[in-house]
Amino acid sequence: MPTYKAPVEDVKFLLNDVFHMERYGNMPGFADASPDVVAAILEEAAKFAEEVVTPLNRVGDLESCTRHPDGSVTTPKGFKEAYRQMIDGGWVGISVPTEYGGQGLPATMTTIVSEFIASANLAFSMYSGLTQGAIAAILHHASPAQKQTYLPKMTTGEWTGTMNLTEPHCGTDLGMLRTKAVPQSDGSYKITGTKIFISAGEHDMTENIIHLVLARIEGAPQGVKGISLFIVPKFFVNADGSVGARNGVMCGSIEHKMGIHGNSTCVMNYDNATGWLLGEANKGLNAMFTMMNEARLAVGLQGLTQSEVAYQNAANYARDRLQGRSISGVKAPDKPADPIIVHPDIRRVLMSIKSCNEAARTLVLWTALRADIQRRSDDEKARQAAEDHMGLLTPVIKGMLSDTGFANTVAAQQVFGGHGYIGEHGMEQFVRDARITMIYEGANGIQALDLVVRKLGRDGGRAITAFFNEVSAFVKANGDEAMKPYVAPLAEALAQLQQATMWFMQNAMKQPDNAGAGSSDYLHLFGLVALAYMWAQMAKTAQDKLKNGANGSEERMKAKLVTGKFFMERVLPESAAHLKRITTGADTMMALPADAF
Amino acid sequence: MPTYKAPVEDVKFLLNDVFHMERYGNMPGFADASPDVVAAILEEAAKFAEEVVTPLNRVGDLESCTRHPDGSVTTPKGFKEAYRQMIDGGWVGISVPTEYGGQGLPATMTTIVSEFIASANLAFSMYSGLTQGAIAAILHHASPAQKQTYLPKMTTGEWTGTMNLTEPHCGTDLGMLRTKAVPQSDGSYKITGTKIFISAGEHDMTENIIHLVLARIEGAPQGVKGISLFIVPKFFVNADGSVGARNGVMCGSIEHKMGIHGNSTCVMNYDNATGWLLGEANKGLNAMFTMMNEARLAVGLQGLTQSEVAYQNAANYARDRLQGRSISGVKAPDKPADPIIVHPDIRRVLMSIKSCNEAARTLVLWTALRADIQRRSDDEKARQAAEDHMGLLTPVIKGMLSDTGFANTVAAQQVFGGHGYIGEHGMEQFVRDARITMIYEGANGIQALDLVVRKLGRDGGRAITAFFNEVSAFVKANGDEAMKPYVAPLAEALAQLQQATMWFMQNAMKQPDNAGAGSSDYLHLFGLVALAYMWAQMAKTAQDKLKNGANGSEERMKAKLVTGKFFMERVLPESAAHLKRITTGADTMMALPADAF
Repeated sequence: MPTYKAPVEDVKFLLNDVFHMERYGNMPGFADASPDVVAAILEEAAKFAEEVVTPLNRVGDLESCTRHPDGSVTTPKGFKEAYRQMIDGGWVGISVPTEYGGQGLPATMTTIVSEFIASANLAFSMYSGLTQGAIAAILHHASPAQKQTYLPKMTTGEWTGTMNLTEPHCGTDLGMLRTKAVPQSDGSYKITGTKIFISAGEHDMTENIIHLVLARIEGAPQGVKGISLFIVPKFFVNADGSVGARNGVMCGSIEHKMGIHGNSTCVMNYDNATGWLLGEANKGLNAMFTMMNEARLAVGLQGLTQSEVAYQNAANYARDRLQGRSISGVKAPDKPADPIIVHPDIRRVLMSIKSCNEAARTLVLWTALRADIQRRSDDEKARQAAEDHMGLLTPVIKGMLSDTGFANTVAAQQVFGGHGYIGEHGMEQFVRDARITMIYEGANGIQALDLVVRKLGRDGGRAITAFFNEVSAFVKANGDEAMKPYVAPLAEALAQLQQATMWFMQNAMKQPDNAGAGSSDYLHLFGLVALAYMWAQMAKTAQDKLKNGANGSEERMKAKLVTGKFFMERVLPESAAHLKRITTGADTMMALPADAF
Repeated sequence: MPTYKAPVEDVKFLLNDVFHMERYGNMPGFADASPDVVAAILEEAAKFAEEVVTPLNRVGDLESCTRHPDGSVTTPKGFKEAYRQMIDGGWVGISVPTEYGGQGLPATMTTIVSEFIASANLAFSMYSGLTQGAIAAILHHASPAQKQTYLPKMTTGEWTGTMNLTEPHCGTDLGMLRTKAVPQSDGSYKITGTKIFISAGEHDMTENIIHLVLARIEGAPQGVKGISLFIVPKFFVNADGSVGARNGVMCGSIEHKMGIHGNSTCVMNYDNATGWLLGEANKGLNAMFTMMNEARLAVGLQGLTQSEVAYQNAANYARDRLQGRSISGVKAPDKPADPIIVHPDIRRVLMSIKSCNEAARTLVLWTALRADIQRRSDDEKARQAAEDHMGLLTPVIKGMLSDTGFANTVAAQQVFGGHGYIGEHGMEQFVRDARITMIYEGANGIQALDLVVRKLGRDGGRAITAFFNEVSAFVKANGDEAMKPYVAPLAEALAQLQQATMWFMQNAMKQPDNAGAGSSDYLHLFGLVALAYMWAQMAKTAQDKLKNGANGSEERMKAKLVTGKFFMERVLPESAAHLKRITTGADTMMALPADAF
């Protein structure tokens, strides 16, 4: 059975030492998040994730969700009870404003707790994860009355939320969607259509489910400009807040998927279901993107979570499994063979994953703090800069961390040899579960296109310029000998990223396919630079701590310096190949006729 | 439902135009393999794979194999009937010498047929694939009487074969194996022990199964020098060749695996089973390696097969699925959206896979022809050179083609978006099935170590020197302008590979971990050079054909030139990162204590 240990010390290092969370004390919620409070939350969340949620991971995979003839869905054994503990612990709403029953803590805290729970059990974590996305959409776009109706129960987790975008013939291209909304005299709408791939679409864990549904109001324009977002509760909500009659929405079937079996991925049939407009008519995409951007960051994080738990189990196995002898001489003469962690190729795998995971976690928290600034700062310029940052980094985090996360679960599985391919050790489940992160909330090819075509040039390139300036300033400020192993490779990769950006400016206007042809490589090049920048910051912090007194964390700080160096030497060199591919352009790629494939 | 179309034309191009198979006419079996005969075999094999074997792929995945309380195993519905057609078609023994009932055709023909069948259904193909490995071990190491007893029925496929190496505590490190063999007065042995991960260990498709089992004769030395190989038939064979009493071998359970569900991967319990020594006592590894090397090449090929079938389905989907509009302008104005094949990022994926697959097939056939030379040539020097080639290329083909094959099935799955994650289209099965190829017959880390530590320095580096000379000679002979896009990048990558080889010579002696630390990157660098060399040869052939009359294959030859160029521009640039990593050495990688992971 796989195990999981939440990286509490690593998170504290990032919040306290690298990002100095105490400096944000003037923003709402941050004053309440003192180091002691944070530490207590981390310990509690770790305990819940490790002891309650982890043991259900394999159960969920083996058992899956079951749809009954009446359309109801049963979640795997133990899910309902564990979810009850989620509610009792108040985990869903820790960052929701107190006026709706939340704790008002920084969104960063939700991000951290989400990491722990998703590492423990990705399928389980999605029920509350989607609720948090739905809460965000309602918070920012709904009417005061709608907020009062839905938010309190969603904040406690007593009701869950869903996102309904995809239809059989349209996923990426939402302009083609057919679900229709017919206005009623009372201001509501009758919604009819079929949605597919709806995570947590139906289940038995809560008394109500609040569906957010994209649909086209009768007579609205074709394409994305005629799409509206609706709130469609599974059960109507009575005036007193209690749950009333059943609405016309039903789970038609559950998809048979490669992984995340513990989550009910549903075909949802809307048959004259009653819905209420959320935000303005025909501006549904706008509201949906609030939710979507939260979800995209969450999915990037999910990539990390599977890589992290797979890594931990691979490291344990590598320390325990005896096989062969070290090529540099016997290391465990008292044993029939050496533990496989002595073999360089096993180390290569473990170091690669470790060096990606720790930087990925840093990147996620760095961006989560920006999300808090965007929402909570009273400094307009800071809010604007944070928004720019979020727009730019969202596709990078989603694409890079899910691609890397998946590749790393595969690498961790490899450490187990044949034992990784069978169900028993749980490694193959991590791979199957991680695979979805590259696909949902916009496949990674779409993230790359969003980055290159929409985000780079926005506002005259203000976001990318700010990013370049920030990294350059760090490089310039840390030119000393000790930081050279970190800063020199970072500077080189940054220059490559700048060159690639310039190349797009010069070549994508006259031939737009050049942008598409290089987009995925650009996203990965950007991701590498971002991760390298995180390592440079961690290395600086570790060096400072080792110089000024590390308070018992000496070994961990030394390990940071080694791991960061490994990243620079072994992971980052990929950047040059990305640049080379980008500057090759689209000509060869697009040369063949479609029937030559 | 996924479909499959065997790449008959591509194989003909390779055999006839690139490798000029007719030049081998003086070797036994080749004279019988005239272009007409070859074409007929390809057509028949394609038909069998496409029409009979392909439809069973998903059936096998969904149904799996079932073990009954008596230890018997039922294969998925339809497998037995399809396997009967394998026997009737004589497909198992096409390359086995005619004296044992085979057709004596080149081993290259078996390789080609194996590709088709494994693309159609990997799990199904393993039953006959393992038989072919067992036949090879018996052919080269068994006594004449043993050959007469076992080969004829294995050649027809009426009996299948297995390899029994792994035990719960030992996979890679066979020196630790515990299965014991007690000599009996009649010259037989009593075999007792437990073997795991035994593919096709038990099934209902044939009347007998011939197990080849590694065990330690009582009193034999510890470690690999005390291991012997035994023939242990499931049913004893009577003097008249008929099947007799049951032997003491039983399937204890079937593993629950990530993929290849249609193959019964068994725990095999040997309980005083009667076995007969195959080859010399304590030289079991030697005999096993005959089988293992065949199997390793077959597994590399398997990597290609899953990539190929996944690619074909992704290409079909990309032509059919309408979603979004081309960024360079609407391509299908009469349709609600453009087919996704117009999007550069989709092209990138398809071109990448296509360019890898076509080169991989070339590499496999090039090496299969060398295998024929090694076994059939009357020129001792040619045999020696072929053996060198096989030794060097086996780990490269196994490791590179399985790693690339898996990555490419994942990429092909991505083309389907969310539809790739659900079972319906079969894409996620290709990924799960392909995953095993990186693990079995020696995990790829072991292949890399075999290449760097055992194969590079063998016989004073004779094999690698010959490889370098051959590629260099090609580069030198093709310096013309037309070949430059192919030969210049190949030359650059070759130089990098030579540099890496030199680096090992200089740095692995004093610090052996430097060899292990760079081994996986070296294998991939080697693989890239080998694939690039294949593309250079194909490009040369295509250019010559276009110049001298392509006989209706103009479009295909032009596509070859484009696809090869894509490989040079977009796939090969990875080589520089490999070199950079290799020359970084082991220091950072090995620096952390085991408990820092």
